[in-house]
Amino acid sequence: MTLAWRCLRKAPQRLFSTSTRRLEVRSIAELPPRVHPGFKETSDHDLLALKWPSPPQNILFVRKDADEAVHSALLEYTQHVKSNYPDSNLVFEPDVAEQIHESFDFPVYTLRNSSSYHEKVDLTTTLGGDGTILHAASLFATSASVPPVLSFSMGTLGFLGEWKFKDYKRAFRDVYVSGHPPPSTLTDGGSGPASTSGWSKLRGKSMGAGRASRVLMRNRLRIGIFDLAGQRLPHEPPFAHPDNHSEDIFALNEVLLHRGANPHLAHITILLGTPGHQKVLTTAIADGFLVSTPTGSTAYSLSSGGCIVHPLVSSLLLTPICPRSLSFRPVVLPSNTPVTLRIEPTNRGKEIEVSVDGVRRQTGLTAGMEVRVVGEEVRTPGIKGERDWRGGVPSIVQGGGSGGAEDGWVGGLNGLLKFNYPFGEEG
Amino acid sequence: MTLAWRCLRKAPQRLFSTSTRRLEVRSIAELPPRVHPGFKETSDHDLLALKWPSPPQNILFVRKDADEAVHSALLEYTQHVKSNYPDSNLVFEPDVAEQIHESFDFPVYTLRNSSSYHEKVDLTTTLGGDGTILHAASLFATSASVPPVLSFSMGTLGFLGEWKFKDYKRAFRDVYVSGHPPPSTLTDGGSGPASTSGWSKLRGKSMGAGRASRVLMRNRLRIGIFDLAGQRLPHEPPFAHPDNHSEDIFALNEVLLHRGANPHLAHITILLGTPGHQKVLTTAIADGFLVSTPTGSTAYSLSSGGCIVHPLVSSLLLTPICPRSLSFRPVVLPSNTPVTLRIEPTNRGKEIEVSVDGVRRQTGLTAGMEVRVVGEEVRTPGIKGERDWRGGVPSIVQGGGSGGAEDGWVGGLNGLLKFNYPFGEEG
Amino acid sequence: MTLAWRCLRKAPQRLFSTSTRRLEVRSIAELPPRVHPGFKETSDHDLLALKWPSPPQNILFVRKDADEAVHSALLEYTQHVKSNYPDSNLVFEPDVAEQIHESFDFPVYTLRNSSSYHEKVDLTTTLGGDGTILHAASLFATSASVPPVLSFSMGTLGFLGEWKFKDYKRAFRDVYVSGHPPPSTLTDGGSGPASTSGWSKLRGKSMGAGRASRVLMRNRLRIGIFDLAGQRLPHEPPFAHPDNHSEDIFALNEVLLHRGANPHLAHITILLGTPGHQKVLTTAIADGFLVSTPTGSTAYSLSSGGCIVHPLVSSLLLTPICPRSLSFRPVVLPSNTPVTLRIEPTNRGKEIEVSVDGVRRQTGLTAGMEVRVVGEEVRTPGIKGERDWRGGVPSIVQGGGSGGAEDGWVGGLNGLLKFNYPFGEEG
Amino acid sequence: MTLAWRCLRKAPQRLFSTSTRRLEVRSIAELPPRVHPGFKETSDHDLLALKWPSPPQNILFVRKDADEAVHSALLEYTQHVKSNYPDSNLVFEPDVAEQIHESFDFPVYTLRNSSSYHEKVDLTTTLGGDGTILHAASLFATSASVPPVLSFSMGTLGFLGEWKFKDYKRAFRDVYVSGHPPPSTLTDGGSGPASTSGWSKLRGKSMGAGRASRVLMRNRLRIGIFDLAGQRLPHEPPFAHPDNHSEDIFALNEVLLHRGANPHLAHITILLGTPGHQKVLTTAIADGFLVSTPTGSTAYSLSSGGCIVHPLVSSLLLTPICPRSLSFRPVVLPSNTPVTLRIEPTNRGKEIEVSVDGVRRQTGLTAGMEVRVVGEEVRTPGIKGERDWRGGVPSIVQGGGSGGAEDGWVGGLNGLLKFNYPFGEEG
Repeated sequence: MTLAWRCLRKAPQRLFSTSTRRLEVRSIAELPPRVHPGFKETSDHDLLALKWPSPPQNILFVRKDADEAVHSALLEYTQHVKSNYPDSNLVFEPDVAEQIHESFDFPVYTLRNSSSYHEKVDLTTTLGGDGTILHAASLFATSASVPPVLSFSMGTLGFLGEWKFKDYKRAFRDVYVSGHPPPSTLTDGGSGPASTSGWSKLRGKSMGAGRASRVLMRNRLRIGIFDLAGQRLPHEPPFAHPDNHSEDIFALNEVLLHRGANPHLAHITILLGTPGHQKVLTTAIADGFLVSTPTGSTAYSLSSGGCIVHPLVSSLLLTPICPRSLSFRPVVLPSNTPVTLRIEPTNRGKEIEVSVDGVRRQTGLTAGMEVRVVGEEVRTPGIKGERDWRGGVPSIVQGGGSGGAEDGWVGGLNGLLKFNYPFGEEG
Repeated sequence: MTLAWRCLRKAPQRLFSTSTRRLEVRSIAELPPRVHPGFKETSDHDLLALKWPSPPQNILFVRKDADEAVHSALLEYTQHVKSNYPDSNLVFEPDVAEQIHESFDFPVYTLRNSSSYHEKVDLTTTLGGDGTILHAASLFATSASVPPVLSFSMGTLGFLGEWKFKDYKRAFRDVYVSGHPPPSTLTDGGSGPASTSGWSKLRGKSMGAGRASRVLMRNRLRIGIFDLAGQRLPHEPPFAHPDNHSEDIFALNEVLLHRGANPHLAHITILLGTPGHQKVLTTAIADGFLVSTPTGSTAYSLSSGGCIVHPLVSSLLLTPICPRSLSFRPVVLPSNTPVTLRIEPTNRGKEIEVSVDGVRRQTGLTAGMEVRVVGEEVRTPGIKGERDWRGGVPSIVQGGGSGGAEDGWVGGLNGLLKFNYPFGEEG
Repeated sequence: MTLAWRCLRKAPQRLFSTSTRRLEVRSIAELPPRVHPGFKETSDHDLLALKWPSPPQNILFVRKDADEAVHSALLEYTQHVKSNYPDSNLVFEPDVAEQIHESFDFPVYTLRNSSSYHEKVDLTTTLGGDGTILHAASLFATSASVPPVLSFSMGTLGFLGEWKFKDYKRAFRDVYVSGHPPPSTLTDGGSGPASTSGWSKLRGKSMGAGRASRVLMRNRLRIGIFDLAGQRLPHEPPFAHPDNHSEDIFALNEVLLHRGANPHLAHITILLGTPGHQKVLTTAIADGFLVSTPTGSTAYSLSSGGCIVHPLVSSLLLTPICPRSLSFRPVVLPSNTPVTLRIEPTNRGKEIEVSVDGVRRQTGLTAGMEVRVVGEEVRTPGIKGERDWRGGVPSIVQGGGSGGAEDGWVGGLNGLLKFNYPFGEEG
Repeated sequence: MTLAWRCLRKAPQRLFSTSTRRLEVRSIAELPPRVHPGFKETSDHDLLALKWPSPPQNILFVRKDADEAVHSALLEYTQHVKSNYPDSNLVFEPDVAEQIHESFDFPVYTLRNSSSYHEKVDLTTTLGGDGTILHAASLFATSASVPPVLSFSMGTLGFLGEWKFKDYKRAFRDVYVSGHPPPSTLTDGGSGPASTSGWSKLRGKSMGAGRASRVLMRNRLRIGIFDLAGQRLPHEPPFAHPDNHSEDIFALNEVLLHRGANPHLAHITILLGTPGHQKVLTTAIADGFLVSTPTGSTAYSLSSGGCIVHPLVSSLLLTPICPRSLSFRPVVLPSNTPVTLRIEPTNRGKEIEVSVDGVRRQTGLTAGMEVRVVGEEVRTPGIKGERDWRGGVPSIVQGGGSGGAEDGWVGGLNGLLKFNYPFGEEG
């Protein structure tokens, strides 16, 4: 693997002409501001229709680590995008930008100190599997507003709605033009960052009807950590991005409390309701405790005995990990239920670890501290319309045809989980 | 028990004066038409506020069978209602009406041939436990619109939000006046069946602020049975009420398919989506298969390994019963997912039993037949307001104060399920 | 399928010459008495070595029903056995004997009124799957002593140690000569039913070292049913064979108590220990209750949530079916624990069904009746040696080489159960 | 608590006379060698009868930490033993010896550098709960032969057969005289370490029939750790006692492999059989993996979803912790199955933690290393008799009367686990 990577890094020098621009990695601070799409309700299985006011320009590419085939695919994919959508700006994570920019004769962009992804990125696109999508989402873990995500898989399709990589040209184009107004309404070569010029240039290539891409809006958890006195604890690495504009952290899969290396079981009291009107549900004495989204129901929660919840069921899952009880069955609550996880004094001063989507917070929690969790609100209350969506991870899903959101999900259950594989023979 | 009952039946002869009216049991066909309440959204944990346009008059009393204490309580309760709310009409199930009417010097009402509960009953009130509430709901199993249910328990409070019987006077009054307009807007002695005269009469008794009762709208399953050719099968006993105005049957807890006495496992294919756009989820090879509501998640589904779903999570639960598979984990789907259960030819001509809320259909199902299930729509699409609710079982819940719907539910988990009872000692 | 069977029945008329003997089906009562083998302990994973005192003569062939390929294989197999082991007598179940005897020019044997399999059959050999082996075992359900079973599968190998059918010639020969004494000790042409002449005749065919077949002695459950007064209830169809020489019934997989069509849950109290010194374990309120052998741990018990127990763990499994409890975890007890299942009065006079290895007893049980279960004793106490084995189902297993009993069992877990199929992707 | 402890330490100075001997803590190396009891099979539920060849003299007292009431009880108990059995020598763990010896006017003994418990201790007696018994057993974790354990509980009785502390006088006496020969065979005042003089002195106190104490011989796991080359790894703290006379470590409950702080799941392959003849059962991809004894089946394994196995079922339990699989059901194997847990290269160089009975080994395991586990052999092969027992933890159990071993176990299930607590109401 090490050898392969070294080859990969040198090879581009022979493929591309050298130029001064070739080596440029710029800060995303230089990019035009983000284009926020609208999402229109459809009659189609609760999926939404993606509507760009102007074409997406700043495209964040996230790839799986340490996989040569994925990296080669990324090169092919990004070359295609830049050639066919010349107005687009390619954004990468810092280490990928360092590695890949030599292959290009145009500048690439990455996160620098004072910049932030969520202020600039119009569209995120991932190459890898479910883990890569989760990682991409974590780049927006402190942002209330996440750009749409278009995901590709090189191998088995996962639960999170990946497309097959071989379809990348069509898939990207469909997303790029999604919500494109009828040709007659387009001015010739609009100007400015929000112009629709990208679409105009595509017109000659028989853009077609411009059917809107289907979006599954995945709800996240909104998570805050509070001390004994009820004061909010500040963000800590790795969640202390310079661009934290939200006091909360968002999780696409789950928040986990775990005893970690502590030989004693964690004692965690679960309370339901808003502070002041809380009801104690129970005290978990366990290795750990999970609050998951439906999206996370096929991740860690499933390993811990949770049930499988469709991503469109607006809910929170409570799942204990190895509880010292025979009768702690997993619980599914309405997404808008405020859930408080309180560290009990009976933990004897030992720290309880807290992780968000698999990333552990540097400092653990001690007695009296609380993790407060609730499903994020995905719509602005009062206003109803295409543009009132303000939360969730807009995941572009395949089909949008007959099967709707079921296609990928049912496929994932059967392909990935080997769900309901029968045993034995009958009779 | 038999002895006790005989005593009970004779005792009233000493307590009440004899009159010609005493023995009267009338048909509910003679009653004024039903009063449909409105339900107003509140900021209170997704509970609704009950709003009568005029006082409820036709009250259906349902009691647990074969329990002397419950029957005595029923006598006390009904006497109180008739004395204090003289406009009210007391409705009973036929056998209870036969047994109880001698105790009264006013007529009681019951279901006769051509009549129907759902056209007349304004309010249902139950004495017993969760089973009695389930039975009361089954009286409306073929009605799309169910009157509010006020439930009392003599013993342990169940999951379904019962009140303690000792509070019956206050509880009934609160429901009776719920949504009562401010006194000034009441005309003196309104006339006609929809008049508010019942409220006027109460005024002297310091009716107070008239705080609205809180309602948990429990979703039901809408169930249809179809033959090989896709033709709907007619209702059968015990679901063939003369007043069937709906083609579907509604379940508050669950619909069950089971192999019954058949020694071979049932083979049932589960399809998701509307006919024409269906996706096969899987084929269950099992003793049986359940589709449950969240309300039913603490009933049979729980025994079969399902998880606990809060009644406000709009969802359907799929739970296999003793599947021939290690990997058939329970699944939770959005409430509006059409679910089809198809009897496979591999059942070899044996019948599969179908039961709704524990009541078995007389004739079983054979290969190619389908049970189609979907969560009922509880709101009229397009119209939003107090009066657009048209489905669900409006269950009057306690508190409505701080705890909201959580109170009873959390209490049920801990009191009834002995949820998360810890084992052993630590250290 | 019907067509195929009709063809099958006619075909033999063209293949075999007609003779008066051809049509003969005789009673097994005419056969010489059974040859009881010895079982010698080995250092080989607790498997036993099969030792015939003289060659097996009366061979019972049991085949899967309604499967044309299996029937053809049976014809081939039995022709081979009769041709190569001419002293052998072929025994079939009555319906198979009726169907197959026309294909042969020698008599076949079957069960007639006053006869019994266990008094005559030296060796049982099955064609089919696990279900067929279970059926073969059930023919000895009232016999304390069961002949060795050699099983073949046409398709997937099951848990019960089947051999591939293509190996039938070698497998049968190995079993036939198992425990064969060194050639020098054999007299020429011994006489009488216990003679070793069968082996002598084989000698010319280079019989070789005569390595002993490996036997896994599967423990069964010993089951008695008792009335309120503690009196044993007589056997009933289908367990009322004329040859019942045991008061108990034996189960290879499990005994099941189930509510059947009763809408109310079964109430069954489980007591441990010998009458007079019993301890109440618990009262199961459930759809049903299972007591299983380790062999049965991969059958119904597995569907009901039981764990997987290796057939050499001397134990009983208690597994509830859909209990009304969150905390009824399956329990594994020592095989020699007397377990009593007592029908509670709270069953309200409804019958509880009882089934042994999937076969339901005609009459159910009522309040106060008891099912008493214990693992059968497989060795005569006090005497230790090859011939002291008196219980269990001696199952001839493959290999006997490196892997021992693990081979088939581990294969079954992975091949049949799809045990531990991983989901998702990591990272 | 700190305050309380300080008081406790000073109080004795007022209660006991000061002497030069008072402060003495001696090494157990000075004690006479250990007396090994015999264990006689009984007809009593597979329990054994304890038979001392001469009275136990060196008594190890183990108590729960940081519990004042337990410490007071220990003082009372030890004073009683020394007063009534003056030949007895009191042994404590070092920290307890330091704390307690000032309370006595006779020397106490403890472990010093080159000494070892298992060479000296005749009887261990514990005060606390299951955790204290587990700790006491861990003092013999590297000894193949463990002295009998008599356990007392101050509170709830646990699974491990504790006696109520209030019965300590009778319980200790019963154990002390267990197997005592009839008075006539006792010589007057035998001499030497193996003399029966202790019993003679008791005679005047109406020793009675000397009914033998009942012993439940709890099997342990024998555990070895091996490197890539198959070389045994040396013991490490905390298992590196100076007295390690065994190459293996023994576990009363379980051995655990866990990913610990590693964010990636552990990849562990499970092989069955002796090296050279191993069969791969499966590869666990999970948080961790447990091999447990039946005694451990109600500990960590139960939290991880394992079933409950009676301590007399000779078996090993394999239980995954949060596996990435829907189909990894717990497995129960014969106790004598060699189980190898091999760390896979796919763990990417990360260490897998290994813990024995809850105590973590200082250094984790890396790819290719193996943990080899098998149930310890409790009898010397070939020799059968009272004195051939050489393994297991001889646990003195109550009753020995009617209920036998069931008493405590059934009590533990119902009292501690709240086993099979029913939910809801029926009907």
